[in-house]
Amino acid sequence: MKFELQACTAPGQRMVELAEEHAADFATRAAEHDRENTFVAENFDLMKESGLLAAAAPEQFGGLGVESAHDITVAISRLARGCGSTAIAANMHIGSVWVVTRNWLQGVATGDTAASEGLGQFLPVLGRSQAVVSGAGTESGSAFVFPQTTATPVDGGYVINGHKIFATNSDIADSVTVFLKIPDAEGWWRSGIAIMLRGAKGMDVRGNWDAMGMRGSGSHDVVFTDCFVPAAMVFPGAPIGEFGTDGWLGIAVTNYALVGAFLGIAEAARQYIVDQVKTRRKPPFDHVLAERPATQFQVAEIDVSLTAARAALSRTGQMIDEHIARPDSELTRDDIRDLMHQWQCTKLIVNRAAADVVDRALALSGGAGYLSSSVLSRLYRDVRAGPFMQPLSPNEAFEYIGRVGLGLEPDAEIRSLLTHLKGAP
Amino acid sequence: MKFELQACTAPGQRMVELAEEHAADFATRAAEHDRENTFVAENFDLMKESGLLAAAAPEQFGGLGVESAHDITVAISRLARGCGSTAIAANMHIGSVWVVTRNWLQGVATGDTAASEGLGQFLPVLGRSQAVVSGAGTESGSAFVFPQTTATPVDGGYVINGHKIFATNSDIADSVTVFLKIPDAEGWWRSGIAIMLRGAKGMDVRGNWDAMGMRGSGSHDVVFTDCFVPAAMVFPGAPIGEFGTDGWLGIAVTNYALVGAFLGIAEAARQYIVDQVKTRRKPPFDHVLAERPATQFQVAEIDVSLTAARAALSRTGQMIDEHIARPDSELTRDDIRDLMHQWQCTKLIVNRAAADVVDRALALSGGAGYLSSSVLSRLYRDVRAGPFMQPLSPNEAFEYIGRVGLGLEPDAEIRSLLTHLKGAP
Amino acid sequence: MKFELQACTAPGQRMVELAEEHAADFATRAAEHDRENTFVAENFDLMKESGLLAAAAPEQFGGLGVESAHDITVAISRLARGCGSTAIAANMHIGSVWVVTRNWLQGVATGDTAASEGLGQFLPVLGRSQAVVSGAGTESGSAFVFPQTTATPVDGGYVINGHKIFATNSDIADSVTVFLKIPDAEGWWRSGIAIMLRGAKGMDVRGNWDAMGMRGSGSHDVVFTDCFVPAAMVFPGAPIGEFGTDGWLGIAVTNYALVGAFLGIAEAARQYIVDQVKTRRKPPFDHVLAERPATQFQVAEIDVSLTAARAALSRTGQMIDEHIARPDSELTRDDIRDLMHQWQCTKLIVNRAAADVVDRALALSGGAGYLSSSVLSRLYRDVRAGPFMQPLSPNEAFEYIGRVGLGLEPDAEIRSLLTHLKGAP
Amino acid sequence: MKFELQACTAPGQRMVELAEEHAADFATRAAEHDRENTFVAENFDLMKESGLLAAAAPEQFGGLGVESAHDITVAISRLARGCGSTAIAANMHIGSVWVVTRNWLQGVATGDTAASEGLGQFLPVLGRSQAVVSGAGTESGSAFVFPQTTATPVDGGYVINGHKIFATNSDIADSVTVFLKIPDAEGWWRSGIAIMLRGAKGMDVRGNWDAMGMRGSGSHDVVFTDCFVPAAMVFPGAPIGEFGTDGWLGIAVTNYALVGAFLGIAEAARQYIVDQVKTRRKPPFDHVLAERPATQFQVAEIDVSLTAARAALSRTGQMIDEHIARPDSELTRDDIRDLMHQWQCTKLIVNRAAADVVDRALALSGGAGYLSSSVLSRLYRDVRAGPFMQPLSPNEAFEYIGRVGLGLEPDAEIRSLLTHLKGAP
Repeated sequence: MKFELQACTAPGQRMVELAEEHAADFATRAAEHDRENTFVAENFDLMKESGLLAAAAPEQFGGLGVESAHDITVAISRLARGCGSTAIAANMHIGSVWVVTRNWLQGVATGDTAASEGLGQFLPVLGRSQAVVSGAGTESGSAFVFPQTTATPVDGGYVINGHKIFATNSDIADSVTVFLKIPDAEGWWRSGIAIMLRGAKGMDVRGNWDAMGMRGSGSHDVVFTDCFVPAAMVFPGAPIGEFGTDGWLGIAVTNYALVGAFLGIAEAARQYIVDQVKTRRKPPFDHVLAERPATQFQVAEIDVSLTAARAALSRTGQMIDEHIARPDSELTRDDIRDLMHQWQCTKLIVNRAAADVVDRALALSGGAGYLSSSVLSRLYRDVRAGPFMQPLSPNEAFEYIGRVGLGLEPDAEIRSLLTHLKGAP
Repeated sequence: MKFELQACTAPGQRMVELAEEHAADFATRAAEHDRENTFVAENFDLMKESGLLAAAAPEQFGGLGVESAHDITVAISRLARGCGSTAIAANMHIGSVWVVTRNWLQGVATGDTAASEGLGQFLPVLGRSQAVVSGAGTESGSAFVFPQTTATPVDGGYVINGHKIFATNSDIADSVTVFLKIPDAEGWWRSGIAIMLRGAKGMDVRGNWDAMGMRGSGSHDVVFTDCFVPAAMVFPGAPIGEFGTDGWLGIAVTNYALVGAFLGIAEAARQYIVDQVKTRRKPPFDHVLAERPATQFQVAEIDVSLTAARAALSRTGQMIDEHIARPDSELTRDDIRDLMHQWQCTKLIVNRAAADVVDRALALSGGAGYLSSSVLSRLYRDVRAGPFMQPLSPNEAFEYIGRVGLGLEPDAEIRSLLTHLKGAP
Repeated sequence: MKFELQACTAPGQRMVELAEEHAADFATRAAEHDRENTFVAENFDLMKESGLLAAAAPEQFGGLGVESAHDITVAISRLARGCGSTAIAANMHIGSVWVVTRNWLQGVATGDTAASEGLGQFLPVLGRSQAVVSGAGTESGSAFVFPQTTATPVDGGYVINGHKIFATNSDIADSVTVFLKIPDAEGWWRSGIAIMLRGAKGMDVRGNWDAMGMRGSGSHDVVFTDCFVPAAMVFPGAPIGEFGTDGWLGIAVTNYALVGAFLGIAEAARQYIVDQVKTRRKPPFDHVLAERPATQFQVAEIDVSLTAARAALSRTGQMIDEHIARPDSELTRDDIRDLMHQWQCTKLIVNRAAADVVDRALALSGGAGYLSSSVLSRLYRDVRAGPFMQPLSPNEAFEYIGRVGLGLEPDAEIRSLLTHLKGAP
Repeated sequence: MKFELQACTAPGQRMVELAEEHAADFATRAAEHDRENTFVAENFDLMKESGLLAAAAPEQFGGLGVESAHDITVAISRLARGCGSTAIAANMHIGSVWVVTRNWLQGVATGDTAASEGLGQFLPVLGRSQAVVSGAGTESGSAFVFPQTTATPVDGGYVINGHKIFATNSDIADSVTVFLKIPDAEGWWRSGIAIMLRGAKGMDVRGNWDAMGMRGSGSHDVVFTDCFVPAAMVFPGAPIGEFGTDGWLGIAVTNYALVGAFLGIAEAARQYIVDQVKTRRKPPFDHVLAERPATQFQVAEIDVSLTAARAALSRTGQMIDEHIARPDSELTRDDIRDLMHQWQCTKLIVNRAAADVVDRALALSGGAGYLSSSVLSRLYRDVRAGPFMQPLSPNEAFEYIGRVGLGLEPDAEIRSLLTHLKGAP
């Protein structure tokens, strides 16, 4: 496929190659997982074996040493050509490994031995892909910067209560990273994360994922009822109601690479339909469909959409990489707003382009693509997950982009609410 | 629902009222038929009972006497608010009844007693909805005006061979109207229709309908293998390769009303999401989602789309009605091209608007709409059937509209082929 | 031109015919007025002569007796095919005549002799087109329902101060209808209109209209500095900050018909380019451009846009007509919101469609259309006036449609401000 | 302006800085040149002085040594923020200098002393910007690969006949590079270029440029009537009817950078309107317009459009640069098709985005932008030049992209014609 995205780094290139190999294989089972609504478990076994799942772990621990958000995004897009569900499920884990590695690297760099040694114990496990990590960030109806899941301090730790949805990967996850809020000393809350291990008492992975697309991703509800977690596994962050600089890059990389999945889906749709029109004929004409001007005009629009999506994904990925090259401490709030602005623009560009490409491929299929037996009918359902699959929600995104674009506080409404609430007794 | 389409005639008004009553009931079972991929059989029983299925039959035979294509379209849109599959399945039958009634009326008017008496025997059956009629027009990959299914003359009739797809309703149909080609005396073919009765030897209703949407519509493949049909049941038409004036209005009414189904789907999506945002809140805010500007802007675009779709559907429906008021013999080829041009423009307007509305409703749902349990996830799949559900295919439509708009022969390519083929030995 | 809009009433039909005749003539001078930035004065003389300007006056006073908003809109669209500037300038006057006639008719019907006799004296002047009426509604940057121009009560009348822009027609107007606010007894204001006669002391028609399009429309600034007007010429209306029911139909008809101008511009662009591509060739090919698939696809999209625009314009026009048939006293606030909602949706549909059509015509022109000598380069500039030419502004429209569509108060923000201001000392 | 494009090379960075300085100054005169339809002559004098015009000349001859197409594109985009006409006029010359430099560099590299010495004599003139070069490529209605202007061999040279349009810069050009066809030995033609010096007998620079936008660019018609040119100034290329590999990079760089102008126009529109909405208020509200959600949503869409345009422009520019790094002899026909495909996709992305941005800025202006006195009214007219300003024409582009995207010959129709014509007696 010409003009496709390429990795910028050597480890990234290796990751992309692995992803391509896997994708060809995953494609053979994607329809079945979709139909049966089953988690892509065997794909995970294969990605453990190949080393793909450990791509973001340092080489010395068995990983590929991929640090580039750009390159991970490209690799996820390749996986998605074969199976969108596997791509987003793999990304959830790979992003988590990236975060641990990032923190470890920064610990080493700054001489923070607590961090480097603590994480250093976990990294061999991740480097060998002996544990799968899920994340539980989304809640029904609440704003991302305002989690409703709470960690209430108790002796030796916290008790967690809340209801998470879209916890991709939770089907087989050995640990779940939960995004929540923790009361602070001033009567307000901080956001934070808690690492929950599989089988924790009070954590119920519902096994209820049943959506119109991405059906193999195991994105179940996870419900916490008075679920105890030791203090060492809880990491408080910024006050709720805003994105803090600490840890933001982790959120960005984990979620940004996800956008790549929707490029991959669009590329798969294009590949499929181009192969079709180059061989199919429409009686009584004896030329192939590719020779018809109507076909060529649809393909031209497909290629325009893909060109924009690839370019935006690549350029913003490189912007994020430039910030990854610096220590966290150098990241300012303005940096984050700028990157978030570009990420959200890119998310819109890619999701719109991907939906457009799949739609045109369907049009070219002439009805055959509408049947359950066609890969296009799966891609049409999978691609619609894009807008929901990460912060910000479609409705929040416009407001965020517009306000930052105008130099305004992005969260003015929330801030005004915070002030109001803080002032209350 | 304000600004909704209204019937223009009194019988049409009655039909619309019945459709609204049914829709409320059908909505309660639509999810199950979708999930189980089962035909909406009990809905048909209820529509037989209420008289809706016989709407287009003359009053004296038990029908409602609806002659207006506009009004049938409105009624189909109402049905689709409750269940898209039922709407398109009902339309298939109702359109057929309209055609029989039209032919009977013209037979009576012109004193063609063969026609009026022959059809007059069939109309009581249709007026009491004792038989359900399906149509088999579509084939995989062939141009509509160039059917590949053949009727070969044999003693006393014809032998039919061919493979039809998307035969909506065929699950329970008592007869299937097959669009096919028949050799003529000059070594060329005429298009034509054959009426096949349920259980005919050599006709195989495959029962294999399994698509991503419209799952309750029973739109199976129907395969004919050396299937005999008596001459009396075969009606030759114009030479293949063009739309003739004879019978064109039947094709138009049968198919045009189908466009209404996609308006109804869009209206259902709007209704659902407006109800949601008027009651749901997003913590920690205490206003309902409807109060958010982002919500209002999406709803504004939804209403713009619906305004265009309704207006186009109504105006073109009225144009068709004006031609229905005249005898067939007055219809010219230019009339047909003009109506076809407007019908195809309207089909594009409505299908684009409907897809847009459902997409925005999904965006407003914030992810909840993506779950299989949400009606929006069904509407998203159902609405995509629109472009495929009738001639012309999306790719043919642009060519047709553009050529007629420019005053060119719409089928120049086919004509040139015809000339070539005819000239061949 | 096929599928074009047709008048619904006999007087409307006569008006449309006149408009077509004029348009053919006006087209010959449109380029010159555009280039020279001169008012289309001679076109007004011709429309006075033909009776078109008096179309909305009652027949007994010399008019055509056109009452239908739909039909006026169609006639304005026909004028705009020849000259957009003349169309909007004519509409300004014709709408005013319609308003006077409406008020006279209602006065007669309700036995309000003051109204019927007062206006009855003015109608012969309008019926013979002996005076031209302009309107001054728009101000730079203020919300339509919140005029900043004030009428301050003084002995025997009012003194007016304010600055109006886009006063179409003011170049030659014998009277200017000014939209303004008048202090009321409760320390608040009412909106209202004042009729100012040409040459009034303190009224300065600036003669400064110089825009990128609609250059022949004489839409000058009109500035009022302590300009006295007798009480009899001032008509107070509803409290500012909302649309009242009184007089709303006048606003609607005057402004709604204006939308028709942009349909006419689009139709002119289509006609021009279709004529071109049917005769021009592109060396070395010897077929005309119309035979190229790229041409046909552009024309198909043009026809889709026009089909939607015409249908929406027609349907909403008929909705307004239904309300015109009733006395003012029966109009409710909900009626007005509903009509306003549909009008604004239609305005968006038509303006988007018209811009799209002109843009595609330009693309088809291959660069020739970009030259000042081409009619397309004028249509491209004229068509962009559409969004600005009447309330609501593009940015207000989305909010209005969305809020009314959701069943919310359309002017919640203004109301909250009103409450706040009223409560202030 | 955040997220704006940056040069990739040090010389490019210098060029961009110069362009920014000039743009601020040019902006002060852009309105006047637009109004008066006068060539931006004094801007050229300033760019000669600063060295910007010689940017692409080698450093040793006084230039900046900019070789990167990407960086030239960025610099042109910066110029266009101040004055679109100057940007495209400068590009015409700069591109020509790039071509001469490229040929000289390749001559030096390959030891082709004829080339290196011949061009080496011209380069000092260009390095000091002592001559301005225009190009005459476009003809009314003919396909780019099929020029109708002919060079007929005569004693010692050729006689040229033809009519070129859109010859940007020709107002002051010291030489004009003419794209034409030359008969070959086989009875066919080759494309080629001829260098014509100012004042050549039989060359008539018409001085007639008068378009709706880009009015300061001096893009006059140039007409050749039996105009003699010595053989040394004529350079035959590939057979007509296709893009050859020789010289293609010159065409690409010259024209690709032009796309940058339309990004710059869009950026100027954004900057203008953002400044406006951050300070303007709408009575009776006391917040600035930027605080209104409708404003924020428009700005969000503007930023999405700009993000896509910048990314595509940057990525494709880098692709071209990769090929520039290689000798011409390594370029294959497939390379050219691929680059051409991406260039055309990018042209569409940027032109659509730029039109969208200007349109939204106008909407935000609330009518003020429609006045001739507003910069937006100029940008609206300038931006529409984008699709016409370089090959391929909008209608050809879709066909080209679609066919190459499908792996088909892009010029099948032309080739079939060629075969036919060649075969003719």
